[in-house]
Formats: sequence, structure tokens, C-alpha cells
Amino acid sequence: LSIGIGIAGTGEVGGEVVRILRQKSGLLMQRCGVELEIVKASYRSRRPPPDLLPDEVITTSLDEVVEDPRAQIVVELLGGIDDAYRVITGALQRGKSVITANKAVLAAHGGLIFARARESGAALGFEAAVAGAIPIISSLRNSFVAETFHRFYGILNGTTNFMLSRMQEGMPYSEALRLAQEKGYAEADPSLDVEGTDAAQKLALLSSLLFNTPIPPNVFTQGITDLTENDIRYASDLGYTVKLIASARRLDEGLELSVRPTLIPSGHELAHIQNEYNALFIKGDNIGQSMFYGLGAGGRPTASMVVSDLVRVARSLEKGTSSFPVFFNSEMIPLVPIEEHRSPFYLRFGVMDQVGILAKISTILAEHGISLSGAWAKTVSNNVISLVVATHQTRSGDVYQAVKKIDASEGLTSGSSPVLPINDLRNGEK
Amino acid sequence: LSIGIGIAGTGEVGGEVVRILRQKSGLLMQRCGVELEIVKASYRSRRPPPDLLPDEVITTSLDEVVEDPRAQIVVELLGGIDDAYRVITGALQRGKSVITANKAVLAAHGGLIFARARESGAALGFEAAVAGAIPIISSLRNSFVAETFHRFYGILNGTTNFMLSRMQEGMPYSEALRLAQEKGYAEADPSLDVEGTDAAQKLALLSSLLFNTPIPPNVFTQGITDLTENDIRYASDLGYTVKLIASARRLDEGLELSVRPTLIPSGHELAHIQNEYNALFIKGDNIGQSMFYGLGAGGRPTASMVVSDLVRVARSLEKGTSSFPVFFNSEMIPLVPIEEHRSPFYLRFGVMDQVGILAKISTILAEHGISLSGAWAKTVSNNVISLVVATHQTRSGDVYQAVKKIDASEGLTSGSSPVLPINDLRNGEK
Repeated sequence: LSIGIGIAGTGEVGGEVVRILRQKSGLLMQRCGVELEIVKASYRSRRPPPDLLPDEVITTSLDEVVEDPRAQIVVELLGGIDDAYRVITGALQRGKSVITANKAVLAAHGGLIFARARESGAALGFEAAVAGAIPIISSLRNSFVAETFHRFYGILNGTTNFMLSRMQEGMPYSEALRLAQEKGYAEADPSLDVEGTDAAQKLALLSSLLFNTPIPPNVFTQGITDLTENDIRYASDLGYTVKLIASARRLDEGLELSVRPTLIPSGHELAHIQNEYNALFIKGDNIGQSMFYGLGAGGRPTASMVVSDLVRVARSLEKGTSSFPVFFNSEMIPLVPIEEHRSPFYLRFGVMDQVGILAKISTILAEHGISLSGAWAKTVSNNVISLVVATHQTRSGDVYQAVKKIDASEGLTSGSSPVLPINDLRNGEK
Repeated sequence: LSIGIGIAGTGEVGGEVVRILRQKSGLLMQRCGVELEIVKASYRSRRPPPDLLPDEVITTSLDEVVEDPRAQIVVELLGGIDDAYRVITGALQRGKSVITANKAVLAAHGGLIFARARESGAALGFEAAVAGAIPIISSLRNSFVAETFHRFYGILNGTTNFMLSRMQEGMPYSEALRLAQEKGYAEADPSLDVEGTDAAQKLALLSSLLFNTPIPPNVFTQGITDLTENDIRYASDLGYTVKLIASARRLDEGLELSVRPTLIPSGHELAHIQNEYNALFIKGDNIGQSMFYGLGAGGRPTASMVVSDLVRVARSLEKGTSSFPVFFNSEMIPLVPIEEHRSPFYLRFGVMDQVGILAKISTILAEHGISLSGAWAKTVSNNVISLVVATHQTRSGDVYQAVKKIDASEGLTSGSSPVLPINDLRNGEK
């Protein structure tokens, strides 16, 4: 018995999926019970080697992959949104099962895609869409079924974590970005990574599984583009490490979701997550605290998770069933507006070194009800200093307003001042 | 539709399973598609509260649980070996699916039990048997199907890790053990934990899944009973932390398996795993390095994993299929004898403080071809010193022989000297 597979996209991830299916066919046959046969595969720019994909299998037409009647499972590895959406819904409409590694299309159209899958009874695998080699999706769909989750935080973007690791060593932002691009971690247009969008898409997907809610749109997202290597050094002086933290909290009022560069204690496990690794902490009512750590991206790790979905779906197809459910309540849990998120903050103001500056700034902060736990003047150059301020627990909205007012005050700061939450992650957490 | 469940053992874990099934019946119904109904449950000494288990369900007879025709799934939570084996095989013989949290019975009779399950076509779930709340078994059975593993190491016993955490703070062994018993982590007879047996059973189970081999018997096991808080301090002086490390390496010659108190770099993630937590590192050919971390024991985390198996099996029963395979090659990969394991070692000799002691000891070590990377005399009391020795990479057999000879030399050492491998875990690893 064999099950036909259509692959849309044979680039970095797709190429590795093809390689694994070829090289490990014996092992997979044993584990799957059926042969996984690639019946059609599309490429965009670079044709995969003919010894892996012979001429009769290869095409440049996405429709040929979706429409091939032998393809019982369609694997979407195009990236991007529009073509991917067309391939996924086209396949589901034909009753085919779908596997995707594409968080962007799920974050944008997940509700429709899941509904389509439910109607057609087809399976939908997306393990590879979040946190590369970490089997968090399967764990949430299958292993943590008895858990009620109240808290999640983690590092979900390998590119920015690689850059922050370099900046931690003193490298400026622009050089860290160039190096990430050189190593192939960051795209030519790195905005999805450095603006935090990629992490926010993954957080939205995870949140829907963690909290049984439709995929939340509009996760508050703050990228790392305003960070300087100085911020990272000042944070380090205070005993903190800056990481791009995706955070989710289930409160009575709703869901508190954000992706922000965050100061976390340098002794915390997450502070030690280096380079292109991802790490996820979850807190459940029975299991307590649990952590997963692994490569967050890359062709081979991602491809391995795509193949694991393939085997799972093929097994269920062989049995004539789909034991591959996604659980959602249909009602969206409301999001707590970012203004209402509360935490201590790190603020940095680039100011001219002159008498009374701290007084002016701290007066404006006080007017907004913000009390300080410390303030430090750091010399940057002759006349310029960085005024670093740490606040006590504060409403985010008050901090954003106060900083906006300070930045707008004539002659006070140069440019916009970074506002970063400080999160102890364990101590003092609800 | 409902699926009948028999529970053998309603103690610490079983009691929590009952509680979760009752309290979360709605959630589980939604995720499972069927109702999970407890039709029979046995207890040994303490009867669970009647509002959780009414009289017609409760029994003290294991046979009643196994033989109840309504029980389609039997959950074995007795612990121990003989009764557990009887319940598991009795249920499988009747074509019932089985879920167990019992590493001891699987390590002892796993081969027979898996064969019985295969014959009967019944499902066998054992997620809760290894590493409590960490879904490593499901990840290996379902998510890492495309991986070839070469390396595993981790902390698999929460009790000893709790004790080592206390000893790291200066508490003597006996007091740490007493505290572990007080907190309910260690049994009245703690030998399964402190001798390393429990960790070795889990390592054997994991190895069979990691390396596609029948469950290996006779994993080399060294407990923590010979360790003193001084060893832990001396190790710390050298930049190491002592953890009870379960280690597996796939070499051309075979499998290198051991459970030993091991010096690992104090900067390594595993050195930071405190108290009753477990942590597992795996290295796969595609996913690279991956880590899992969570509570290793306790009623509630373990029960949560038992329920996850229940939902998985119930789902597959409802569909009339078992999509719940265990993969083994039938051929056992040979184990590399412990004598052939190679690593640097930490040795500590309790000796009288007299001229020439180091010369005598280092001469014997040299005669066995062991070269030293350092030796330190640590004053213990007036006349007694601890001679701490670190070796270069050495064959274990040579070290054990040399130390045996030193311990047997008249008037040289007092009692048997601890021999602990030093493992950098990442650097210089094959």
C-alpha cells in the first residue's frame, strides 16, 4: 500500500522533506505502515536534483500539485500568504489532507482554514509552523489534553535571538543583522523577524491551542529595531538579559498577549538560550511548569517535523480515519488591551548632559503616576548621556503616554526612547 | 457513546486520575469525542472518597478490574512488578488496551508485554512511565519518526536530584534523604531512587525507543549513596556540578548506557535543573539538539500524562483502530561493557596526611595507564585529608581496577573511594 503526496514548494524546507522521504523510506515505511510516495512536487526558481525528483514528478504549476488525483496529502511549503492559502484551501476542498509549515497563512486565515478542514473531515498538520524542531503543537494537541493553561512565555524567533546573542557580546544591531543574513537566518527583507511579526504569528497559533480560543488577531508586537547594544549592556549592569519574549497570560479579564523585547533575569534559563534556538515555557494546572528547547528554524529540523506530520496523517488515512483533531471553542477570549498590561519597565532617554534633566523627566513620569526603582546616568559621549530609568510595576498605557510626552518635550531627548518591560518570569508572577 | 475504564490502583497517581476524569469530564469529552467512564477501580489500603468513586465501582480485587467486561481500557497504577504484570497481561489477553505509569514492570518484562500487545492488537500507553509531565514517549513515538538518534543524556530521577540540590547547598546526604522522605519524594525504602535503579529503568525504556532496540537489561547503574557533600564542594571548586546523569550513546560498537553521578560543567543547562525536576537532552540527525524539562514525578503531573494516554487510546478505540504503535527492531543492539566506556574521571581518596601518599596513589594509577590532569589535597580533619584526583580521558575498566587496588593497599585509604565520570556533555563529544 502506498499513499500519494503532493509537495508545493521544494525550497529550503521542501528540499529537505524530499531528501528525508527518499533516504529514510525504509524506516518511515516501518513506522508508518504504508509507503509515502511523492507523486507531484513543484518548484519556483531552482529545480531540485533529478535523482531526487524525476521529470514526471516535477512541475512549476501549483495547480498540478493540488489537482493531482493521486495526491492524498498536500504539503504546503511555499511560505507567504496568498499562494499558500490557495493551495491549502484548494486541497481541503478536494478532501485532501494538508500539512503546512506556514505560520503566516495560519495566523492570517487560520479560522477559515480550520473550518474548511473540519467540514471536509481532512487532517491538517502544522507542527512545523511553530518552533521548528520542538514538538509543541503535537504536545498541545495530544499530550496536554487534561491541562488548563494559565501562562506561556518563550523565545519563538531564532533570527532575532541570534542577533541578540551577538549584541550581548557587544556587536551593534546593524552588524548582527548583516551576520544573520550572511548565515541565512534572516531573509533579504528581515522585517518579519526584526519587527516581531513572525514571533507574534507563532504566539497567536500557540495561544489558540493553549487557551482553546480562535486564533487571536492583533497580538501586540514590538520588534528589536530600536534596541542598541548599549541597552543590552545597561540591562546587563542591572542583572538582566534582553530577549524577544512572546508572552501569554490567561487572566479573568481576558488574554494578555504580547511580543516585546523584555529584560529577564540573567540567571533565568531563557537568558541562556543562545543563537538560533527557541525555548518555550508553559504552566499547566496539573503538570506545573514545563520547558521545551530546540532549533527554531532551518531546513532540516523543520523538514523532520513536516515528515512527522506526514507519518501521522498517513497512518490515520491508512486506517480510514482522521485521529487528528484541533480543539477550539468558537468564542474568542477577549484580549486585554496593551495599555492595561502591567509590569515594571526599563526606559532609556538619550539626553544632553545638563543640570535638571533627571528632574524634568522624573517629574513627567510622576505626573503619570509612575514611580521609579532607580535611575542611572550613563555617559555616551562628551555632552550626551543615556538616562536609564527602571520603574516599579506600572500600567503600560501610562508609561507609553509619559514617554511620548517626554520625547515631545522640546530639547529633552533625541529621537524616540525605548520602552522595555522587565519580567522576572518566576518571582512575583500571578 | 462512552468507553469503560478500569483502574487498578487509586493511590497517589490513581487518585489524581480519578479526580481529573471527574472534574474535567466536559473538556475531555470535547477532546476525546467520547465519554470516559470509570466502571471499576481498585484500592489497596485507603478507599478514595465515595463522591469520586461510588460503592458499585470500587473494589479491593484486581481481578474484578481486569475481568469487568465493560472495561475496554485498563489503567495499571499499582507500582511494583508482580501484581502489575498480572494485571497488564491479563488485560491484554482479553484484548483490552492498557495504560501504565510503571517503568519497573516495563523494564523487567517490557519485551513480553509489548509482544502480547502486538498479538492482541490492543494499544499500550506508557507516557507516564518516564519523566512525569514531560511528553517524551509520545514525542519519540509520534513526532521524531524521521530522526536517527545518536545521543541522549538527562536527569531522570527527581528524588535524587532534589537530594543533590540540597547537598549542593551543603546539606549532608543523610539529612537530604530525610528531607526528601519528609516531602514525600522518597519512599520509606528509598533504594530504587538512591541506587539509581529507577533512573536506569527509565533509561532502558527510552533507549529502546531512541535506538529501535528491545529494552536493554543490565544498564550499568551507580547510585549516589557513596557521595558526600564534600565531593559536591570539591567538584564545585573545579567548576563542576554533580548530577545523577543517565547517558546513552549510539556507537559503531554498540550502545553505551549508564546511570552514574557525573561531574558536568556548572555552566551547562543541566547543572541548573533543581529539585524534583527532570530534564532530557536528545540529539537527532535532523533536529539537532533538543531539550525537555518538567516535573519528573508527583501525583498530578503523572496523572495528567495517564489521562493523555487515555484520551489517545479512547479516540482510537472510538474509530475502531489503534493508531498507537511501538517500534522496535527485534534484534538487540549489543551494549558496550562498562569497562570500555571512556571519559575523564574524578576520584577522591580518604587518606592519612603523610609524606609520600600522593606518590603511592599516583604510581598505582600510572601503572594502570591513567594520566592525571590534576590532584588536590583537601584537609578534612587533623590528620585526615581528601586527595582529589582528576584524570584525563580513560577507559573505565582501568580506573575501577586501579582504585580497587588502591583501596586494597594496606593503610592507604579508608573505605571505598568514589569514582565519578566527568562529562563536558557538549565539548569534545563525538
